This record gives sequence, C-alpha cells and structure tokens, in this order.
Amino acid sequence: MIFVGERVNTGFKDIKQAVLTKDPKPLQEWARKQAAAGATYLDVNLGAVSAKASDMCWMVETVQKAVETPICIDTNKPSILAEAIKVCNKPALINSSTAAKDQMDKFLPIAVAHNASIIGLAMNETGSPKSCAMRVEMAGMFLATAMEAGLSPDRVFLDPIAMPLKFMQDQQKDFLEAARQFAMFSDPPPHIICGLSNIANGTPHKKLINGIFLAMAIGCGLDAAICDVMDLDLLNAGRTADLVMNKEIYADSCIKS
Amino acid sequence: MIFVGERVNTGFKDIKQAVLTKDPKPLQEWARKQAAAGATYLDVNLGAVSAKASDMCWMVETVQKAVETPICIDTNKPSILAEAIKVCNKPALINSSTAAKDQMDKFLPIAVAHNASIIGLAMNETGSPKSCAMRVEMAGMFLATAMEAGLSPDRVFLDPIAMPLKFMQDQQKDFLEAARQFAMFSDPPPHIICGLSNIANGTPHKKLINGIFLAMAIGCGLDAAICDVMDLDLLNAGRTADLVMNKEIYADSCIKS
Repeated sequence: MIFVGERVNTGFKDIKQAVLTKDPKPLQEWARKQAAAGATYLDVNLGAVSAKASDMCWMVETVQKAVETPICIDTNKPSILAEAIKVCNKPALINSSTAAKDQMDKFLPIAVAHNASIIGLAMNETGSPKSCAMRVEMAGMFLATAMEAGLSPDRVFLDPIAMPLKFMQDQQKDFLEAARQFAMFSDPPPHIICGLSNIANGTPHKKLINGIFLAMAIGCGLDAAICDVMDLDLLNAGRTADLVMNKEIYADSCIKS
Repeated sequence: MIFVGERVNTGFKDIKQAVLTKDPKPLQEWARKQAAAGATYLDVNLGAVSAKASDMCWMVETVQKAVETPICIDTNKPSILAEAIKVCNKPALINSSTAAKDQMDKFLPIAVAHNASIIGLAMNETGSPKSCAMRVEMAGMFLATAMEAGLSPDRVFLDPIAMPLKFMQDQQKDFLEAARQFAMFSDPPPHIICGLSNIANGTPHKKLINGIFLAMAIGCGLDAAICDVMDLDLLNAGRTADLVMNKEIYADSCIKS
C-alpha cells in the first residue's frame, strides 16, 4: 500500500502560519512524524496562501531537509509545478491533473521530463463524475494520453474520486466498480489512488467509515491513498486488506500497534 | 446484512453442559443476548454431544421459548435435521449441505418441504475448494440443483468457504472473486454467506481481521455471515460496508455504539 501523508498543507493552520513566516519547524516536524508512521510520499500543498512558485519550492526544500521521503507536489498550477519539481531530490508524484485536454497538455510533459509519476482524476472540464461509466471514460482517457506522452502505466495513479458517503451514497458502488475496471486497463495495471479525507464528511463515525471504505476499495484494486497517516487504525485497515489481497506475506507484525 | 448468531453451539462449554443436564438457562440467555444484538437467525448446533434428534429438538424448542428469532439448524445429519425442522416455529435456515450429490439428495427435499432456506457449501466429496474456479463450479452445481428441486434463489445461501488468513493466504482473493461470481448466478441473486470464525485463526489480531475481511466480502456481494454477533465492532463493520454498497439509507444511527 502506498500511503501519501496529507499533513504538509496550508489548509492546516500551523502549516499556513509556518509558510507565511518561513518557519521550517512545523513542516519538518510533520514530515518526520509522517515518515516515521510509514508514509511513502509526503504531500506538499501551498494552497491559496501564495501564488509564488518560490514559496512552494521553499516548502519542498524544507521538508527534504528533514526526511528522505519523496514529495507529492499538490498544486493545480502548472507554473508552480514546473518550478517545484526542479527542486525535488527524488522522482515526485504530481497531484494532480484532470482528464481535460488543456490540463493534460500542461501537466503530462512535466511528469515525463522529470521522471515523475502523476495522479489523473476521473473528471474533466464538465465536473465531477456522476457514474461508474464516466469515471472509466475519464480515467481511460487520462491513462491513454499519459501513455502516448511516454509514461508507463506504473507512473500513472488514477483517482476514481471519492465522495462523501453521507451525501452521495449512490456514488460509492460506482467508485468501487470503477476502481475494479481501472485495474484492468493495462498489464501491469496503473496505480489506483484516492483522497480519503472527504468520505466521512459530516458523520460522527469518521474513523470507522474511512477504514472500512479503504479496505473495500483495496478489495477492488486501490493501492494508494492520500490520508492521515497518523491514524494507526486506518493504516492497519489498509495493511490488513493488503494481506487479504495477498500483496504481502502474512506475519503478525504486518499489523502495527 | 443477515447476521447468524453462532453462540448456541455445544462447542462452547456452557452450552455443552446445559444440553447434557437439560438446563434451559444458558441457551435462553445466549438466545436473548444475540437477538438483542441484532441476530437475524440463531444457529443451534448439537455437535458431537449427542446423536439423538430429540436433543436437537430440545435445543430448538428451548431457544424458541426465549425469543422469536428464526432458527438456523446446524447439523450435517439429515436424520437430525428432519426432526428438528418440524419443531421450528418459523421458516428455518439449514446449515448446511455440500454440493456432493448424495448430500443434496437428502437435504434439499427437507428444505423444500418445510419452506426453509439452505446453506450450500462450495465443496463436495473431494474436499475443500482450492481455487476460485472450484468454488464457482461447486456453488453453481448446488444452486442449479436447489432450483431444480424447487427452491427459489433467495432461499439459497451459497458459502464460498472462508479459510484462515494466516495459513491459506492465497485463498482469500479466490474467496472474494468467487463471491463476486456467485452474485451473478441468477437474478435475483442467491444469498452469499460465510462463517467468519476461522478467518483470523492463529493471529493476535482477530477483531481487526474479521471486520476488514467482512467488509471486503460485502464489497463482493456477501450479504450474510455466521459470526459472533456480540462483537459490536464486527457488526458495525458490516453495517458500514452495507452503507457503502447503498443497501441501507445512511443515517448516523445505522452505526451502533
């Protein structure tokens, strides 16, 4: 399971403040904690705090001074991505491009040029997907375009777009069936990823819903998640589901306490 | 989700002792507790304590004096089944027949005659299934034979046979894929059931593994489980997975505390 730690994001107040004052400490503390928890990548998100690529570069460099974990560059601005990716010490994961042609035209060449992987969202300029078929169409379009641009499928992370269980309950089965179909797109298959933070929006049972949804998605081929890697129960849910899928050899120590 | 409470079973010492001394209290206490926890059926198993059908009838009648929950008659002896089913107040669930012809020939007519449902195991006289294909073949054979005998698919509970994760790790994916295929056998589909008690054998993480496996199986079409219905975490895992599958309308109260 590939876990992308979500915490170095200016959506969190401590990180926002740290970026505004150029205080490296909060970023580096979260980087160390998430790396120790088992993060495969660390998401770095400048958000709306600044439009300057130099600020994103500062964030990436600050994190890299603390840990060796590869960076997941989280921006929808190609201009910021183009600068930030240059300062990444290791091949990065780009988060993310939709399947809209003008976005793919800008993001994919950057991924190719920098040996990066890239998250492709199952949506385009018309908005969020409303069915399994739309997810499959958008993600298929992204994968095909990425492969034509020169990326092998194992550098493509397709995201079926998770939606809140409480408010879009009918979309959950479509998500799962779409993931199952993404896994059949190519051999080797693309990675399948999602952001877990929305799924339990508005419910008092966040941890339970996050863990169960993650396990069910892994059963359908998901192999990566952007999530709170400090949630040990969530990581154990993912690890256990990986054992069921026979992706790791069972040992009691696979599950952490 | 159909939960079958497993606790009225002479495999447990208190029940064994109660059956030997004809003490109704332990059976009735477990019947009440499991019914209150949300059991849809109560499994009643005489085990090796006695070969007398009258003892099984006593167990069923004792449970029925305490609760109205339908009975799941757990025996591999047609002679015991034939008597016990006569004392059931409500349509019973028969647990279970393999897909071996001589077993089906004995069990299916009893199910038909008494308006019962029946669990069909994805195995036959050659033993436990070793692949997804064997599971599909055995379960398909059972369903076809049951339908020819006069049972509608909604009275057939197919069991893909869960095996211990720790010792038969490669069989878990086969279980899940088999369940997915069972769900496509007919429209309406048969029920899909499993006994959860073996899955976490030999591991220190029983609750986690049971809950995650159950959720993943529900994602593949499972809609019933024979399990410890007193395990609130397990039932909540099943209920949450049902919400993800859109089988119940989400309400915060779907998850119990």
